[in-house]
Amino acid sequence: MIKKHTRSTVLFVLMLSIVFMAFSVPASAETVEENTEAIINLQAALTYVWLLLAGALVFLMHAGFSLVEVGLTRSKNTANILMKNFMTICLGVVVYWVVGWGIMYGTDAAGLIGIDQFFLIGADNAVWNNWFFQMVFAATGATIVSGAMAERTNFKAYLVYCIMMVALIYPVYGHWVWSGADLALLSGADSPLVKIMGAGFHDFAGSGVVHSIGGYSALAGVLILGSRIGKFKNGKAVAIPGHNLTFAFLGTLLLAFGWIGFNGGSTLDGSDPYMNLVIVNTFLAAASGAIAIMIATWIKTGKPDPSLTANGLLGGLVAITASCGSVENWAAIVIGIIAGIVVYAGVMFNENVLKVDDPVGAIAVHGYSGSWGLLSVGVFSVGIGNGILADAAYTAEAPGLIYGGINQFLIQTVGVIASILWAFVISFIIFKIIDVTIGLRVSEEEEIQGLDLAEHGIRAYPEFSMSK
Amino acid sequence: MIKKHTRSTVLFVLMLSIVFMAFSVPASAETVEENTEAIINLQAALTYVWLLLAGALVFLMHAGFSLVEVGLTRSKNTANILMKNFMTICLGVVVYWVVGWGIMYGTDAAGLIGIDQFFLIGADNAVWNNWFFQMVFAATGATIVSGAMAERTNFKAYLVYCIMMVALIYPVYGHWVWSGADLALLSGADSPLVKIMGAGFHDFAGSGVVHSIGGYSALAGVLILGSRIGKFKNGKAVAIPGHNLTFAFLGTLLLAFGWIGFNGGSTLDGSDPYMNLVIVNTFLAAASGAIAIMIATWIKTGKPDPSLTANGLLGGLVAITASCGSVENWAAIVIGIIAGIVVYAGVMFNENVLKVDDPVGAIAVHGYSGSWGLLSVGVFSVGIGNGILADAAYTAEAPGLIYGGINQFLIQTVGVIASILWAFVISFIIFKIIDVTIGLRVSEEEEIQGLDLAEHGIRAYPEFSMSK
Amino acid sequence: MIKKHTRSTVLFVLMLSIVFMAFSVPASAETVEENTEAIINLQAALTYVWLLLAGALVFLMHAGFSLVEVGLTRSKNTANILMKNFMTICLGVVVYWVVGWGIMYGTDAAGLIGIDQFFLIGADNAVWNNWFFQMVFAATGATIVSGAMAERTNFKAYLVYCIMMVALIYPVYGHWVWSGADLALLSGADSPLVKIMGAGFHDFAGSGVVHSIGGYSALAGVLILGSRIGKFKNGKAVAIPGHNLTFAFLGTLLLAFGWIGFNGGSTLDGSDPYMNLVIVNTFLAAASGAIAIMIATWIKTGKPDPSLTANGLLGGLVAITASCGSVENWAAIVIGIIAGIVVYAGVMFNENVLKVDDPVGAIAVHGYSGSWGLLSVGVFSVGIGNGILADAAYTAEAPGLIYGGINQFLIQTVGVIASILWAFVISFIIFKIIDVTIGLRVSEEEEIQGLDLAEHGIRAYPEFSMSK
Repeated sequence: MIKKHTRSTVLFVLMLSIVFMAFSVPASAETVEENTEAIINLQAALTYVWLLLAGALVFLMHAGFSLVEVGLTRSKNTANILMKNFMTICLGVVVYWVVGWGIMYGTDAAGLIGIDQFFLIGADNAVWNNWFFQMVFAATGATIVSGAMAERTNFKAYLVYCIMMVALIYPVYGHWVWSGADLALLSGADSPLVKIMGAGFHDFAGSGVVHSIGGYSALAGVLILGSRIGKFKNGKAVAIPGHNLTFAFLGTLLLAFGWIGFNGGSTLDGSDPYMNLVIVNTFLAAASGAIAIMIATWIKTGKPDPSLTANGLLGGLVAITASCGSVENWAAIVIGIIAGIVVYAGVMFNENVLKVDDPVGAIAVHGYSGSWGLLSVGVFSVGIGNGILADAAYTAEAPGLIYGGINQFLIQTVGVIASILWAFVISFIIFKIIDVTIGLRVSEEEEIQGLDLAEHGIRAYPEFSMSK
Repeated sequence: MIKKHTRSTVLFVLMLSIVFMAFSVPASAETVEENTEAIINLQAALTYVWLLLAGALVFLMHAGFSLVEVGLTRSKNTANILMKNFMTICLGVVVYWVVGWGIMYGTDAAGLIGIDQFFLIGADNAVWNNWFFQMVFAATGATIVSGAMAERTNFKAYLVYCIMMVALIYPVYGHWVWSGADLALLSGADSPLVKIMGAGFHDFAGSGVVHSIGGYSALAGVLILGSRIGKFKNGKAVAIPGHNLTFAFLGTLLLAFGWIGFNGGSTLDGSDPYMNLVIVNTFLAAASGAIAIMIATWIKTGKPDPSLTANGLLGGLVAITASCGSVENWAAIVIGIIAGIVVYAGVMFNENVLKVDDPVGAIAVHGYSGSWGLLSVGVFSVGIGNGILADAAYTAEAPGLIYGGINQFLIQTVGVIASILWAFVISFIIFKIIDVTIGLRVSEEEEIQGLDLAEHGIRAYPEFSMSK
Repeated sequence: MIKKHTRSTVLFVLMLSIVFMAFSVPASAETVEENTEAIINLQAALTYVWLLLAGALVFLMHAGFSLVEVGLTRSKNTANILMKNFMTICLGVVVYWVVGWGIMYGTDAAGLIGIDQFFLIGADNAVWNNWFFQMVFAATGATIVSGAMAERTNFKAYLVYCIMMVALIYPVYGHWVWSGADLALLSGADSPLVKIMGAGFHDFAGSGVVHSIGGYSALAGVLILGSRIGKFKNGKAVAIPGHNLTFAFLGTLLLAFGWIGFNGGSTLDGSDPYMNLVIVNTFLAAASGAIAIMIATWIKTGKPDPSLTANGLLGGLVAITASCGSVENWAAIVIGIIAGIVVYAGVMFNENVLKVDDPVGAIAVHGYSGSWGLLSVGVFSVGIGNGILADAAYTAEAPGLIYGGINQFLIQTVGVIASILWAFVISFIIFKIIDVTIGLRVSEEEEIQGLDLAEHGIRAYPEFSMSK
C-alpha cells in the first residue's frame, strides 16, 4: 500500500505534524480545562448574582407587608405595626442564622428535622448565598401572622412568637418539603408517604411552606386572641376602614415586585431557563386574581372594591407560587381566577361563619389561597419531562388530574393537610403558652388608646388632626 | 534521512504520543464542544436574568406612576387613581398575553401588523423571557393616559380604553418600530419609507413607542373629556395643588429607578456592553432635565418649583430613552436640558394656549418630550460603527445633523409624525366611541364629591381631617 | 519489537489517526480561543449586569434617605427636604461626571488627588459601568449632611455645599482609600503612612469614604448652623417629633434594600464569590444593631423606641460596610451590637454634651458608627488568605487585634483620624465661606413659617388639617 521510498517521507510528515501538535495540543488541553473551570465558576457566579438580587427583592417584601398592614389598619397602631414588621426581619436574620437554617437544611433525622449547621458553622460562599435567599423567606411567615393579629397584640408576646416561628414552625415544615433529604416526610424518595402516594409533594416557592404555614398559624393566633373591640356588633362584622389606602396599594405593588425574586429565585440556579415560565405564570395568575375579585365585588356590591382587589392580586400570587413552574399559561390564569374567588369567599367565611377578625385578610390570602395553590399542582401539573416542561429539572413529578394523573393530586392533598395540622396545632400550643406567661393581648384601655402610645409612647402622625 | 534502526524507535515514540493523544485529545474535543454549548447557555441565562430583573424594575414603575398621579391630585380621588393604575397593569398582563404581543411581534403582514402568536401559543423560555420584558412596557402607555385624565374619568370607560391601548394602539406602532420585520413600516430595511429616507427609524427604548404614543393618546382623551371643574376661571388656568408631595417625589424616584431597567434592559442582551453607555446617558439627561427646569422656574417665579423639577427629571428620562445608546455623554446632557425646557414650555402651552387640563403634566412630559427625544437621535446620533459606538450592534444607523448626516433626521421626523397621527387619531376614535356608549366622564356631582366615594364607596384617608 | 509486516499497518493506522486529528484539532484550537474570549466577555458582562443592578439599588437609597429625613421632621419642611435630596442626586450626577470621578480615579498626583479623566474623557463601557456605580455613592455623602442640617438651612446654600461635597470633599478622601494608586495616601503600597503602619487602610464599601465623611462634614455644618428654634430649652434638648413614621420606616427599609447593592456591588466583580459573605455579614450586623438599640431603649425608657431602632439598623449597616468582607459571621453580630450602642450613645452625646441639633441622628449613625466600623476592621479582620478568607482577593490585608495583629488596627486608626480631620476641617471652611457669602441659615421668620412656603411657595399636604 505504502511504497517504501515514500515511507520515510510519510514518517517525516507525521513527525512534523506531531511536533506541531505537541506544541499546540497540550497548551490547548490546558486552556480547555481552564475554560471548563472558568465556565463552572461563571455558572456559580451567575447563581450568586441571581439569588442575591432575587433575595433583595424578597427582602423588600417586608416593606410591602408593612405598608399593606399599616394601610389597612388605624393610624393609632401604625408605629406598633411598623416596629413589629421591622423586628420580624431583624429577629428573623439572627434566629434563622442561629437555629432555623440548621433545622431546615441540616443533616436529616428520620425525615422530620435537621440537626446540624447551627450558627452556619462551616459555611462557605455557596452556603451563604443560599442562606441569604432562604433567610428572607423565613421571616415572611411571621409577618403574615402579624397582619392577622394587628391592632390588639402585645408587642413582647409577638416577638416571642416570631422567634418560635423562624426557629421552629417554619423550618420544620420546610424540612419536610425542601430539605432534599431522602427521607424528607413529604418529598423524599424514601419517605413512606411519598411511596404510598406514588409521587413527591411539590411546592415550588412556598404556597405551603411560607404562605399556608403563615396563614394557619395566624388562624390559631386570632382564635386565641379574639377580635378587636368593635369588630363584631350583635354577631355581625363591622367594617373598620384602614387609614391610608395609598400605603396599602404601594405595599401590594412592592409585594408583587418582590414576588419576582420569590418565585424566580426559587429555581436556585441562575442558569435554569424555566425561571421565565415561572415569572410569566406568576404574573398571569396575579393579574387574573385581581381581575376576578374586582368583578366579583362589582357584581355583588355595585362598586369595584379596592382593598379586596389588591388582596385578589396577592391571592393569585400566593396560589401560583406552588405551581408556577409546573403548569401551562392558561392554567396559571385559571389558578389565579380561582384564587381571587377563594380570597373573596375566604374573607366572607372568616367574618360571617368563623367570626374571626383578620384586619388585613391574611388568613384568606395566605392560608386558603395557599392551600388552593398546593392543590392546583395536583390538578394542572403537566408533569416532569412533558410538553412545555420537556427539559425542566425542578417541577412537579407527575401529571395532574386534568392530564389523567392521580398520584400528584394525592400527595398534594396530604401536603395540604400536613400544613394545616402542623401550623395550626403547634402555633395554638405556642400562643397558649405565650398567653398564659406573657399575655397575648393588650388591655382594653391600651387597645382603645392605640398601641402606638401604649407600647411605644409615640404617635405616628403627631401633626395631623384626626376626625372623630 | 531517518536511519533504519531508529525508524522503529521513532515509530514507537510516535505511537506512544498518539496513544497519549488518543486519551487526551478526543476527550478535549468533546469538552470543547461542551464548553461552547455551556457558554451559549450561559449567554442566554445572563440575558434571562438581566431581562427578568430589568423587567422587574420596569414593573415597579407602575408604583411610581401611581404615586406621582396620586401625589399631584386631590385626596378625594386617590382610591380611584390607585385602582386605575393597578388595573392597568393587571389588564395589561392578560391583554398583552392574549393579543398585544401577537400584533406587535407576530408574523408580519405588509409591515403594518403581526398576525399570530396570540395567547403566546408555542412559546418557549426565550419567548417568555422577552414577553415579560415587553409586557411591563405595554401597560405603561395606558398609565400615562390615566394621569392626564385623572379626577374626572369614568372608571369603566377607562378600563375599556386601557384594554384597547394594550391590545391595539401600543402594539401596532410598536410593530412598525420594533418588530424586526423586513417590511416594518418605520424601521424595516425593505419598507418604502425607510428606502426613501435612507435610514431606519431608531427608538432605542421607546421615547416614541411608549411615551409619545401615551402622550398623544392622552391629548386626544383630555380634548374629548374636558377640564376638571374649576381648572379654568375666565379662561385662565387655576392651580389645583396635589395632596401629597412626598408621594409625588417617591413616585418620581421609583420611576427613575425603573428606568434603569427600561433603558438598560432594552439592549435585550445581557452580554451587550453598551448597556453601560445607555445607563450613563440616561442619568446625565435625567439630571440635566431636572436642573434645567428648576433653574427656569427659579428665574421665572423667584422660587424653585418642586413639582415641575420632578417633571423635568421625567422629561429628561423620556427624551433620552430613544437616543441613549446612540449619543455622546455631552449630547445626553444637552438633550436633557432641552427636555427640561420642553416640559416647562409644554405645560405652559397646554394651560395657556390649548387650554387643556392635564393634572400631572403627562402630555408635556411623555408626548412633547418624547417627540424631542426621537428628533434628538437625528441630531446627535454618532452613527453605527463610529467613535464611541465602534462595536455597537443596536444604535441609530446613520449620523445626526451635527455630524453632517441628514437621513437619520428625516426618518426620525417621519417617525414623530407617525406617532402623533396614529396615537391621536385612533385614540380620538376610541374615546369617542366609549364616550357615546359608556360615557367617558363622571357626573358633575360625582366629580365634586370625589371619585373615591362615587366609584368605589370608600375614602382613602378616612381618619384624617381635611381643611375646607 | 514491531514486526515488519505490521509496520505498514501501524503506519496506516497512525496516518488515519493523524488525518482524523488534522480535521478535529485545528478546528478545536480555534474554537478554544473563541471560547476563552467568550468567557472573558461573559465575565465582563456579568460584572456589568451586577454593577448596574447594584448601582440601581444604591440609587434607590436616595429615596430612602429622603423618606427617613421627611418622616423624622415636621411637615412644614417636607417639600424643601424632598427638593434638597432630589437635587443632591441630580447635581451629583453632573458634578461627579465633570470633576468628581477625575479627582477620585484620575491619574494620581503625589497620592493625594487625581488629575485627569474630567468629563469622563476617553471613557469606554468598562469605565461607564464603574462610573455609574461610583456616582450613586458620591451623592450619598451630601444627602447625609442634608439630614443633619434639615429644617433651617438655606436652599441655595445647601446646593452650593452639595456641589463642593461631590466635586472635592468626597473624592479626595476617596482617592486616598480607593484609587488604587501606589502612592494613595492611606492604602497605596508605596505610601509612607502604609509603610510605617505595616498595612494598607481597608474600607470595603465606605464606612469611612462615604459615611464618616458625610457624618463629620455634617458635624461641621450643624456647629456653624446652630440648632432649630425650640430644640434646646434652658440647655436641655426637647424632642421634636417627626410628622410621618411610616415614611421613616419605609425609608429605612429602602436603605437596607439599597445596601445590598452598596456592599455587594463593592466587590466590583460579578464573579467574586465573596459577595455572599459580604451580604450575610451585612444583614447580621444590621439586625443586631436594631435589636441592640431596641433593647437598650426598652431598658432605659420602659418602651422600645421606633425611631432609634430604625437608626440602630442603619448604624449596624454603616459599621459593617468597612468590615463585611473581612470578618466572621459572629464578629459581624458583635460589630452590629456595638454599632447599635454607639448610635444610642452618640445621639445622647450630641444632644446632652455637644448640644448640637441633628434632627435625624445622622452624625451618630454615619459619623460615629462609621468610625467604629473602620476600627472594627482592625479588631476582627481574619486577614487576607486566612480561614474563611482563604481565596479572597479584596479584604483587609492583616489580621485584627483579636487574632494578635496590630498593624491593621494602627492603619485603621490613622484612617479614622484622617476622615475626621479632612471632613471636618474642609467642610468647616466651605460652610463658613457659604455662610459669609450666601448665608447658611434661613431667617427666623422663614424657619417658623416652614421652608416649604418660604423657599418653594407651596405646601406638601395642603388638604390636611394640622393640629396646633
